[in-house]
Amino acid sequence: MTAATRQRILEAGAQLIHHQGYNRTGIQEILRAAGVPKGSFYFYFKSKEDFGLALIDVFGQFFRQQAEAILGDKSQPPLRRLDAFFQFFNDYFRQQGFQGGCPVGNLAQEMGDLSPAFAHKLAQSIDFMASCVAGVLEEARQAGQLEQDRDPQALAYFVIASWQGALIRMKALKSAEPLEIFREVVFGRLLVG
Amino acid sequence: MTAATRQRILEAGAQLIHHQGYNRTGIQEILRAAGVPKGSFYFYFKSKEDFGLALIDVFGQFFRQQAEAILGDKSQPPLRRLDAFFQFFNDYFRQQGFQGGCPVGNLAQEMGDLSPAFAHKLAQSIDFMASCVAGVLEEARQAGQLEQDRDPQALAYFVIASWQGALIRMKALKSAEPLEIFREVVFGRLLVG
Repeated sequence: MTAATRQRILEAGAQLIHHQGYNRTGIQEILRAAGVPKGSFYFYFKSKEDFGLALIDVFGQFFRQQAEAILGDKSQPPLRRLDAFFQFFNDYFRQQGFQGGCPVGNLAQEMGDLSPAFAHKLAQSIDFMASCVAGVLEEARQAGQLEQDRDPQALAYFVIASWQGALIRMKALKSAEPLEIFREVVFGRLLVG
Repeated sequence: MTAATRQRILEAGAQLIHHQGYNRTGIQEILRAAGVPKGSFYFYFKSKEDFGLALIDVFGQFFRQQAEAILGDKSQPPLRRLDAFFQFFNDYFRQQGFQGGCPVGNLAQEMGDLSPAFAHKLAQSIDFMASCVAGVLEEARQAGQLEQDRDPQALAYFVIASWQGALIRMKALKSAEPLEIFREVVFGRLLVG
């Protein structure tokens, strides 16, 4: 059951690190939470960094699943899908008591200056997030719901950054207000025809 | 020289924590960097948390100084001042090799879920940052450079969030591109008449 155990360690680590950070979370604590014997960590991962890099994929996968389900639902107009996508995450954070924030953003803050391998992989992960948004913006542009002169890729990076920034304040304020402002400005002012 | 020593500890801590994070930075390391004898920390601060809370003021002061100098320069039109303000920080981060990011945003990520005292003080610090921006947006609105129906306070929170989010990607990418996109979208599309 090697793959299953590895996955259990990653999932336990994802939860702990999402809530208390990478540097604060020890390997023993992760193994304890996963119910895996002490000392077996290095059977599955070369190092804590190797584990952390695999974790970025776990977080990315959660984002990808929601993106496929919600952004990929072509029965809805593109910008309505994008709104629903962020609403899904707003509901998720509300259920979590406005904790955690964006795990990819958190790791970029914590590790961006400390590990080039982390920085590179996190930049790729943000690229992927932006590409999901850019795809929908391009559809909106083609459908005439967005001005023709707008660059979907740059706008998508901006939207993802605005969302990650809103999540920072949400985490400090413990309220939905920052996400509501994000929604109001992005869909009420920025992404208009 | 009590106040001067306390200030030296805070400045050494500010630098270390800005670059490697709060949880990763130990008290002994800060004292060593400050050239202050081991064991004297608790003469100046009740706890590491007490020190961390004082640090938020140090970071806030740097922001406040630039805000007063650049945003307060009434010889320039309001939105040009705001652009110059963010350009000052872009130049600063370029000089720093695109490291560090927003120290208040970093602490909110690291400590927002772990300490209510940190969360509260960081939310206040973000409020202050937004109020500096809101003041300029209100001036722009009165000067007819911004649509009358725009709520300067909500827009200001959004702009600060977008900037903090851009700084996250900057830190991962080690490039000015995220800050350039921020500038292009905020001043080219969002804050227009």
